[in-house]
Amino acid sequence: MSELVDHRLRGAWTPEGPDAAHLPAKAMRWLTERIGNPGSPAPVVPSSGLSVPGSSLAADARAALIEVVGPAHVQTERADRLGVSGGLSYLDLLHRRHPGELPVPDAVVLPADPDEVQRVLDVCVRFDVAVVPFGGGTSVVGGVRAVRGDKAAVIVLDLVRLDRLVSVDPVSRIAVLQAGVRGPRAEELLAEHGFTLGHIPQSHERATIGGFAATRSAGQASSGYGRFEDMVTGVRLATPSGEWRLGVAPASAAGPDLRQLAVGSEGALGVLTEVGVRVRPVPKVRRYQGFVLDGWASAAALVRQLAQSGALADVTRLSDEDETEVSLSLSGGWKTALVRRYLKARGISSPCLLILGWETQSTRELALRRAETVRLVRAAGGISLGAAAGESWRKGRFNGPRQRDALLDLGVCVETLETAAHWSSLDELRDAVRSALRGAFDSSVVMCHISHAYETGASLYFTVLAARSDEDPEGQWLRAKKAACEAIAGLGTISHHHAVGMDHAPYLSAEIGEIGLSVLAAAKAAVDPTGIMNPGKLLP
Amino acid sequence: MSELVDHRLRGAWTPEGPDAAHLPAKAMRWLTERIGNPGSPAPVVPSSGLSVPGSSLAADARAALIEVVGPAHVQTERADRLGVSGGLSYLDLLHRRHPGELPVPDAVVLPADPDEVQRVLDVCVRFDVAVVPFGGGTSVVGGVRAVRGDKAAVIVLDLVRLDRLVSVDPVSRIAVLQAGVRGPRAEELLAEHGFTLGHIPQSHERATIGGFAATRSAGQASSGYGRFEDMVTGVRLATPSGEWRLGVAPASAAGPDLRQLAVGSEGALGVLTEVGVRVRPVPKVRRYQGFVLDGWASAAALVRQLAQSGALADVTRLSDEDETEVSLSLSGGWKTALVRRYLKARGISSPCLLILGWETQSTRELALRRAETVRLVRAAGGISLGAAAGESWRKGRFNGPRQRDALLDLGVCVETLETAAHWSSLDELRDAVRSALRGAFDSSVVMCHISHAYETGASLYFTVLAARSDEDPEGQWLRAKKAACEAIAGLGTISHHHAVGMDHAPYLSAEIGEIGLSVLAAAKAAVDPTGIMNPGKLLP
Repeated sequence: MSELVDHRLRGAWTPEGPDAAHLPAKAMRWLTERIGNPGSPAPVVPSSGLSVPGSSLAADARAALIEVVGPAHVQTERADRLGVSGGLSYLDLLHRRHPGELPVPDAVVLPADPDEVQRVLDVCVRFDVAVVPFGGGTSVVGGVRAVRGDKAAVIVLDLVRLDRLVSVDPVSRIAVLQAGVRGPRAEELLAEHGFTLGHIPQSHERATIGGFAATRSAGQASSGYGRFEDMVTGVRLATPSGEWRLGVAPASAAGPDLRQLAVGSEGALGVLTEVGVRVRPVPKVRRYQGFVLDGWASAAALVRQLAQSGALADVTRLSDEDETEVSLSLSGGWKTALVRRYLKARGISSPCLLILGWETQSTRELALRRAETVRLVRAAGGISLGAAAGESWRKGRFNGPRQRDALLDLGVCVETLETAAHWSSLDELRDAVRSALRGAFDSSVVMCHISHAYETGASLYFTVLAARSDEDPEGQWLRAKKAACEAIAGLGTISHHHAVGMDHAPYLSAEIGEIGLSVLAAAKAAVDPTGIMNPGKLLP
Repeated sequence: MSELVDHRLRGAWTPEGPDAAHLPAKAMRWLTERIGNPGSPAPVVPSSGLSVPGSSLAADARAALIEVVGPAHVQTERADRLGVSGGLSYLDLLHRRHPGELPVPDAVVLPADPDEVQRVLDVCVRFDVAVVPFGGGTSVVGGVRAVRGDKAAVIVLDLVRLDRLVSVDPVSRIAVLQAGVRGPRAEELLAEHGFTLGHIPQSHERATIGGFAATRSAGQASSGYGRFEDMVTGVRLATPSGEWRLGVAPASAAGPDLRQLAVGSEGALGVLTEVGVRVRPVPKVRRYQGFVLDGWASAAALVRQLAQSGALADVTRLSDEDETEVSLSLSGGWKTALVRRYLKARGISSPCLLILGWETQSTRELALRRAETVRLVRAAGGISLGAAAGESWRKGRFNGPRQRDALLDLGVCVETLETAAHWSSLDELRDAVRSALRGAFDSSVVMCHISHAYETGASLYFTVLAARSDEDPEGQWLRAKKAACEAIAGLGTISHHHAVGMDHAPYLSAEIGEIGLSVLAAAKAAVDPTGIMNPGKLLP
């Protein structure tokens, strides 16, 4: 177990995954040129070296939980509790390098099915125990931090055993999946019926169906498959007030859409135990392709044109000049000096990398859709880098978190944040966030990309690299994050697909107003009157 | 004024509209064959013949309202109050034929802008006056019934003066419209900027932007333009707790989507004063076309195939055998005996009419999209009736309510109701509702069509024709409606695009559960603590 625990603590993606945690020397040289010398190396402290407080779970509460899930599924050993302590934000990862600040739950409870989840909640209401629902543990906003609030104890409710495909309705193209099914397993289970969900966020390898729904996740192919909330046809929630099921029709005018209240509720209302999702036939033909555009302004305008003319590829991802520069500098393969010369010869002085990916049922469908999109890309001055560039991106698309681990080990402050805005505000928002982030560090690299485009606007995803402060690494990042969040307020959303968690909670009122907060608080009080559900998340 | 009032009371669509209130003699003959002799003719009682109770609005409340909107905009005359008494359901129309049951408000208040709306609400909180927001008055579910609840008085808040286009953002393709702008006016205002909303429900001529949003309306071209809630980018609400604005980005993971709580709130949370909507360029090429399929089963399967392969036309409307029969029997023009012979010669014994409409930017786009759709229609055995059949439908598409008036005058019980379900439940739902409706009358015609199709399901829209009971016309319909609603529970939604109002409120718990009701009640209590907003609507 302890090896798995260390892996979870580290924030590495999957124990089986390729080891991308090694940065080439030339990459580190390039980075040092840009951000100066990083902070002191800070490897993850082995779990055996951590001091962990004992469990505060009362004996009677523990006994009642055991009565529901059995003794093997109420874990109070230190290694088990450590294994679910926090998510994968930069701060979470820092805490694993600076022991003593880990929020460790009093127990990990692993129910077998939705009924057991409901009964666990009933017990927790009775004994006044806080409940933190836990899927893949990939939250980067403190969404699974084991916070006790004003409760007697806090348990992490690990949904790993809710791993079933409940039903497939091939006529309606709806599948019901239990909340603990991870991304790759969902695809495996659906593929047996010829279907795919098409939801592939960067967290895909570890994150779960319940987590996708609870956080309004958006996958890399959201242009084609939609955001996760667009896929949700129904939900089953365990709440402190009992079970709640929603979703009987594809669309309804029976009052407000309460599914959209359950989706994005981040465990603060209850525990998603089953999610009905719209599925599609497994694509038969895939094509990924890279292009380069000259300069952010014209490249972003192209993406807008694609979105507004219905010509988006299923994956549409545009890197700004800085992110493109990093891609070219840090990687080998096709991204070489030759590429630079090739682009320069074609008059491209500020290359912006555009990845387009299509997933279709036939070569005919691919040809039809691709022709229109590529016509618009070329009309905007785009130059193809071919399928190799597209495939290179596709193969590396889950590597970000692993690279982050490696950079953290090497003393680099590295974190991402994302937002979205309407097209007319997008440039102002990008400038504001870049300024805020740059202003927070002596020197830094701030990259940005659009990975989700809509008719009325797009997401902006930022990655920051800077030398980590040895004195106050946490404060260093908190100041930068605060500056970025304040820059976002009024121009865009505090989160496009990372959710609110604890980290964004202070900024929610700027977006939904005090009235919005009071409505959420009232909804929570209605289903969770004693406030056991995921304290401190979503609501400030 | 009284002419307009009579018109409103009658439920006729527009005073200027074409007079379609005359039914051809052959149509009435055909109908009598099917449903027997109708009830006694019952013309609308002229407003001058109605007995209307005096206004209960207290003098100090009236004075405070006048202070906000001016004396001309607080109307307490009987004709003004009658003019906004109820909507356009069959029961509303019956009440105008059986005087004495009209729910008449104590005053009509006409604010000029969002600020005045807010200040009117503040006055109504202070004087404990119920507020019924009123747009086009086209609710068919009792959504604008002037119910006082436990309040001292009830006003209708007529939003007719909030008739402005507030802003157009051509880059983001977002327009902000005031809530009182009617459908045709919205299109006029947007067309000046080259845009369209593309939202054309049957109520288009009278209904308003605020009403579309408050009721989760779906237009006839929803397959192309989406449902109204899909178009809403932001909302501005006046609530008893103050102003509430939502919508800063095209998509967000900042908690639950509260826009989807405001949309569909039916005036029970507050008054929508401005709505941000996604707009699109005015289409340059329109093409409507009629087809005939053989039998409901294969025709509905075709619509499902179109929806699931992304090949829906912007308008996609499939009539079942009974509705097709009525179309052929009641109309002249292309729908003649010749058509029947033509179809019979081609082996079509159970014709189902399919109307497809495309609205595109170019003939090239039209050709591309149409080719794929028509290919699938033909593969399913569909036979084209040409563009004339499509245009005939398009030209008559707002006539339903006028024909209903004429039938009501002639003693016919005529009403519509709609639902939606996932594809695998659709046939069972259709059978159940048809049985329920047929069982409620000695003899009747029950027609059905699909007018809104999705990947996972579709809407079903029913029209009932029967001889009206002279003894208890209201009870006759209430029993039929109850039977239909009970048949829907568990299989589909209580409303696909007509909303909840008062008529569906008793059935909402079957759809969203007691927990859903408690969440809605809590949200309402948070923004409307004294319960002045639209009593009796949405929540039972």
